[in-house]
Amino acid sequence: MLAINLKAYKEAIGEGAVKILEAAEKALEETGLNIPLVIAPQYIDIYLLSQKAKKVMIFAQHMDPIEPGAFTGHVLPDAIKEAGAKGVILNHSEKQMSIEDIEKAINIARKLDLITIVCASDPVVAEAISILNPDYIAVEPPELIGTGISVSKAKPDVVKNAVKWVKEYNPKVKVLVGAGISNKEDVKKALELGADGVLLSSAVAKAKNPYEKIKELIEGFI
Amino acid sequence: MLAINLKAYKEAIGEGAVKILEAAEKALEETGLNIPLVIAPQYIDIYLLSQKAKKVMIFAQHMDPIEPGAFTGHVLPDAIKEAGAKGVILNHSEKQMSIEDIEKAINIARKLDLITIVCASDPVVAEAISILNPDYIAVEPPELIGTGISVSKAKPDVVKNAVKWVKEYNPKVKVLVGAGISNKEDVKKALELGADGVLLSSAVAKAKNPYEKIKELIEGFI
Amino acid sequence: MLAINLKAYKEAIGEGAVKILEAAEKALEETGLNIPLVIAPQYIDIYLLSQKAKKVMIFAQHMDPIEPGAFTGHVLPDAIKEAGAKGVILNHSEKQMSIEDIEKAINIARKLDLITIVCASDPVVAEAISILNPDYIAVEPPELIGTGISVSKAKPDVVKNAVKWVKEYNPKVKVLVGAGISNKEDVKKALELGADGVLLSSAVAKAKNPYEKIKELIEGFI
Amino acid sequence: MLAINLKAYKEAIGEGAVKILEAAEKALEETGLNIPLVIAPQYIDIYLLSQKAKKVMIFAQHMDPIEPGAFTGHVLPDAIKEAGAKGVILNHSEKQMSIEDIEKAINIARKLDLITIVCASDPVVAEAISILNPDYIAVEPPELIGTGISVSKAKPDVVKNAVKWVKEYNPKVKVLVGAGISNKEDVKKALELGADGVLLSSAVAKAKNPYEKIKELIEGFI
Repeated sequence: MLAINLKAYKEAIGEGAVKILEAAEKALEETGLNIPLVIAPQYIDIYLLSQKAKKVMIFAQHMDPIEPGAFTGHVLPDAIKEAGAKGVILNHSEKQMSIEDIEKAINIARKLDLITIVCASDPVVAEAISILNPDYIAVEPPELIGTGISVSKAKPDVVKNAVKWVKEYNPKVKVLVGAGISNKEDVKKALELGADGVLLSSAVAKAKNPYEKIKELIEGFI
Repeated sequence: MLAINLKAYKEAIGEGAVKILEAAEKALEETGLNIPLVIAPQYIDIYLLSQKAKKVMIFAQHMDPIEPGAFTGHVLPDAIKEAGAKGVILNHSEKQMSIEDIEKAINIARKLDLITIVCASDPVVAEAISILNPDYIAVEPPELIGTGISVSKAKPDVVKNAVKWVKEYNPKVKVLVGAGISNKEDVKKALELGADGVLLSSAVAKAKNPYEKIKELIEGFI
Repeated sequence: MLAINLKAYKEAIGEGAVKILEAAEKALEETGLNIPLVIAPQYIDIYLLSQKAKKVMIFAQHMDPIEPGAFTGHVLPDAIKEAGAKGVILNHSEKQMSIEDIEKAINIARKLDLITIVCASDPVVAEAISILNPDYIAVEPPELIGTGISVSKAKPDVVKNAVKWVKEYNPKVKVLVGAGISNKEDVKKALELGADGVLLSSAVAKAKNPYEKIKELIEGFI
Repeated sequence: MLAINLKAYKEAIGEGAVKILEAAEKALEETGLNIPLVIAPQYIDIYLLSQKAKKVMIFAQHMDPIEPGAFTGHVLPDAIKEAGAKGVILNHSEKQMSIEDIEKAINIARKLDLITIVCASDPVVAEAISILNPDYIAVEPPELIGTGISVSKAKPDVVKNAVKWVKEYNPKVKVLVGAGISNKEDVKKALELGADGVLLSSAVAKAKNPYEKIKELIEGFI
């Protein structure tokens, strides 16, 4: 899986998000590869992007572990689903959740048929989260996020241990790695170390040419 | 102003939100009244509703006081604006903010030309918030929210004092009242006590016939 | 282990906390039993109680996962240690932490030689937390806290599964159960189901005669 | 008032805090000045310091706006009072509170006869908080905290406006300034600009010779 988190980058809201989506669709088509490709925009752009997405899956960057009710300003899982989202990122280091809330959110996602990517800052936390049975765990050492120093090169043991420990305990859970991933080599290296894919952000969201960048990253999966 | 907060009610997401918007547009047209009418849906429904809104203004239920950047799962003011929102509710009792964050959010809203409604639990807090110079302050005693016991009937002094203290200090700020508002009489009473409008939620969001309910509430303004 | 959380109960601060400590010391002595007995008072009472404690161990109700520095209003682990605390409760349902913060706090506790009791709302979360290697896990279904309906009677499967799953994965971790524990029978039942002890609060903190109540509870361990 | 926030500095916990207290008592005595001098240590050190304090007043760095009850890990105002604290700092930029919680905490403090210092990041927020009627407001531009660049020198208008706006609205409220205050000149300058005192931290907490440093600061009041 190639998962692209658009965060709150100026270049990646509204029409900017649409352009990145179109670049991703085109890159998927041209390379002919059939990897799951996720784009996680601002909540507000989920509806618009879901309308236009073909192969790309639109995810939310977070959701609150709530049932419908009186929750002003919260992100209702049912609303995400109805707007067309196929899944959700949970517990990103910029939006941490209690372990109880992660469990609740995973259970709600399962009922609504939303795919879950739960973030973990290190292999031990990744292993703990694997017990909560998400679909994906994304291991992202927070100290490398946004640095351009790739976790797969700078901390190969983080990737190896996360993959080993999660798979030993719960082989159904897929492992993504993130933090500093910015080119084809970083992707290749992550896959060699056993990861099932990557989660990245600024390398695409702030790319001058998102199409070329996404195409390059997809080629890392070949 | 008649402001309707759809919160996270099941009846009021996606197509449900569209129906409430259409009911509001029809009620505005039929009554011929020209009061500002606000609907605040889930973030995810802002784009869809903004596309369809004519006279009704679509607001966000909250936004984070941030500039564009690396903020996963946050609600970026620029994204709200680009999706078509005309304003934002801040500091609702179900989504409280620090006073520093309220100030930052009001300043960002002003730059983006978004109208602000800041909630306050009592007249003293309302007066304090008036110094931060929002467009509207909505006074909502939290103990009455969702009860159907109207603040304008049960606690007229709360309305009177909020209006008096806010206007004395900062006459440009308009005062809404909320909590338990559910019919024409509640609206009339609020206006008699000096309020500039009402903020309500379940009375419309869970109404069997949103059109009849909104029409009744608008008639309270005649 | 018998762990008593004094929370923020009026009867259990300052001199009230000292009385409960003295009752516990006396009960331990009279029964002659040598079980680890923990009292977790308000932060502010830790120093006073630690000065007076003999067999009883004084714990903090929480600590922040921080190293010394500029953290106004935070609870510094080093300060807890220096004041005489022997351990700390983490992630109580009334003071939830992110999974990353639980991991950090456990690691800091280990360096400072503080014993950790990490709370979990159900057996799945308990198992996940066992991977973070705390000394104790206290399983407390939040819906039973403060009800007087004992988890060991009302939800024996919660106790059995928590014990089984934690011990299977990490046999070094001891399992406490909590929520509604209020008498000798509740304790006996918890131990029969495999627990290593109990965590309780109001049954002692609000007892008319803390000495009699603690003695009764200790006798559940015989 | 000279208010010293010990934060979570390693040099300023337990015996370290006692030394700073003794230095402050000695400096007060030697200079013969009768200014209110506050030390705000870790919660855990409040009891110990209150036992030893003569002229110096011990404050908490924060308290939760709660009545006694089931609040694990919270800081109960009644417990602070019983441990000997004379007051409390609220809404420090490292421990921000919602405006509703600040109001509740001030009301609880008044009932318990605790003096309140509420922090504000700028003059506008200071004026807003003055409506909540605390005893003191401490204006601290967060960007200067811990820099050693004194607010009174670098941003004299912040001090002047805070004093002017607060006093105009609520003349009973006293105004402290903080951020970067580290020597006699900074104190003098703050008082010249109209402030009633200063709030500082690292200059004392990390001083090699706390006695000399506190003496110097007190001399700024002459």
